[in-house]
Amino acid sequence: MIKTDILIIGAGPVGMFAVFEAGLLKLHCHLIDALPQPGGQCSEIYPKKPIYDIPAYPEVLAGDLIDNLAEQIKPFEPGYTLGERAQTIEKLEDGTFKVVTNKGTEHYAPTVFIAGGLGSFEPRKPPIKELVDFEDKGVEYIIRDPELYRDKRVVISGGGDSALDWSIFLSDVASEVSLVHRRNEFRGALDSVEKVAELSKSGKINLITDAEVKGINGDGKVESVMIKHKTDGEIIKECDHFIPLFGLSPKLGPIADWGLEIEKNAIVVNNALDYSTNIPGIFAIGDVNTYPGKLKLILCGFHEATIAVQFAYNIINPGKRYVMKYTTVNGVEGFDGEKKEAKKAVVKSM
Amino acid sequence: MIKTDILIIGAGPVGMFAVFEAGLLKLHCHLIDALPQPGGQCSEIYPKKPIYDIPAYPEVLAGDLIDNLAEQIKPFEPGYTLGERAQTIEKLEDGTFKVVTNKGTEHYAPTVFIAGGLGSFEPRKPPIKELVDFEDKGVEYIIRDPELYRDKRVVISGGGDSALDWSIFLSDVASEVSLVHRRNEFRGALDSVEKVAELSKSGKINLITDAEVKGINGDGKVESVMIKHKTDGEIIKECDHFIPLFGLSPKLGPIADWGLEIEKNAIVVNNALDYSTNIPGIFAIGDVNTYPGKLKLILCGFHEATIAVQFAYNIINPGKRYVMKYTTVNGVEGFDGEKKEAKKAVVKSM
Repeated sequence: MIKTDILIIGAGPVGMFAVFEAGLLKLHCHLIDALPQPGGQCSEIYPKKPIYDIPAYPEVLAGDLIDNLAEQIKPFEPGYTLGERAQTIEKLEDGTFKVVTNKGTEHYAPTVFIAGGLGSFEPRKPPIKELVDFEDKGVEYIIRDPELYRDKRVVISGGGDSALDWSIFLSDVASEVSLVHRRNEFRGALDSVEKVAELSKSGKINLITDAEVKGINGDGKVESVMIKHKTDGEIIKECDHFIPLFGLSPKLGPIADWGLEIEKNAIVVNNALDYSTNIPGIFAIGDVNTYPGKLKLILCGFHEATIAVQFAYNIINPGKRYVMKYTTVNGVEGFDGEKKEAKKAVVKSM
Repeated sequence: MIKTDILIIGAGPVGMFAVFEAGLLKLHCHLIDALPQPGGQCSEIYPKKPIYDIPAYPEVLAGDLIDNLAEQIKPFEPGYTLGERAQTIEKLEDGTFKVVTNKGTEHYAPTVFIAGGLGSFEPRKPPIKELVDFEDKGVEYIIRDPELYRDKRVVISGGGDSALDWSIFLSDVASEVSLVHRRNEFRGALDSVEKVAELSKSGKINLITDAEVKGINGDGKVESVMIKHKTDGEIIKECDHFIPLFGLSPKLGPIADWGLEIEKNAIVVNNALDYSTNIPGIFAIGDVNTYPGKLKLILCGFHEATIAVQFAYNIINPGKRYVMKYTTVNGVEGFDGEKKEAKKAVVKSM
């Protein structure tokens, strides 16, 4: 059972920064995310892409932004439930929220911050009749642990960076990697495309283009896939895993059923005060919320997180008054005992 | 005559970032600041102090924050009127605002952003009867150009970093530097205090402690100051300049008389929409504004600037609709021809 002050749903940049601002107020946070690592889209979808509109960063790679945020919040020792989706919420009699994930993990907190970005990223699934039956039985949409594929026969399908990069990576891990793509053209970073061509020539990747996976066979687990080639007809390819990598598409997911006021796939909040939702104690920050003039920018989420934390403090510590202090003056004291502060001026006589 | 799209009063971090967000919308900005350089307090008061609560910067020196912002906004070629205070504002018949500084420089723009921080920093003045009469006639409160003091006799008073550091710096420029402080103890960085002690021993700084400057003499310009020593009585010290460095204290200044709604020394804005003031076309962002739940944090000012710019766009381009684009997707195109963008995926056949 996990108990915390602020339960943050979504471990993207905005959820992460909320940990810092909460920490300054001595509040503990726990983050839940469906993805296997913190950072949201920045880590999962475009870690190597530069962002230009983070204040005071003329240019920063999305992955580096997350690394810097992780370092900034480290002293405040956030808890994480990763690779699980927040499924249900319930307000207990004492006002505590109980949030349970799709894997049954229970979380308890007096305040909940929804920082779910555009929603949880659901894999785009190819239209294969048997696909759902083989999920977690050899069909995976996200590669969580490459070691799962050691010495196994793997079929990957897709034509973007994800399919290219994982084919390259797994060619050293799996006993056999086949990459199936319905065109003869790949869309990805130039060096990835070239590397795959090279590995195909040297026989380390079995490249099957102008073809699509159309069926899956097996008894309780994947044993082979049926590949339909544009001109050569059907191929039955024996394998242990089939990994369709067609990207992720955002869905608000189970949160949509939590009784929150929703408008155009986003949660309506009170931007005139505290970014609270229609349910007292639940706040929504970052791309997941909406209000008049809303901009879906990371920098706006940082502000929203900061303001919301102040009001969460009042819920968690009723009647107690918090006076904001400047980090430049008072420094930052982590829960891990770390203390960072500006050098004080010295008084010295002459 | 200076014409621009957004006239920004206050060139601190928030005013600077507004230039970036405006630039993304192809709007030009011009900044006015009473201080001789951009950066506001960060540059003037604590450039070497670390800040810990800028998102994704576990620690950043205030001066470095400003340098990074300067680099980020450079492609958008902001104009600057520095060392002048915005004095009067007038709304012309065509809706344009005319802002004139204390030195008579005229600025015209359809929108005005007040990003004045805690106000313009007014020097704290020691209680010397003749002080005001000698302003700009040998009495200066801020050192704008050290060359002014080359081969001159200078008396500095104060006991903090500013007095110490300028005494050290000018000991190499001026023909004579006297440092007068009413205590025998100095409050500043350890190495500054030690350096002054050293320069005093070697005769490069004439250190007069337990003493205060009590009078100024001269015919149309400073010719000497009268120093009152705790035990030794009065000393007349001949000099060309008297520089009292007792710190700066923030004052809202002339802006207080512009007809804006003021509450507790801050400008009331509509935080439920666009951070506009009671005068249409004038916005207030950063520490200078107030609204329910306001936090005087740089990161909040970044958000406020970003939102306000979108609404300023509508005033400057009536009827035109701007669709926000992500820098990660569309890159950043400066007015100087510079274009930064993420590498595009390549399409390559195999």
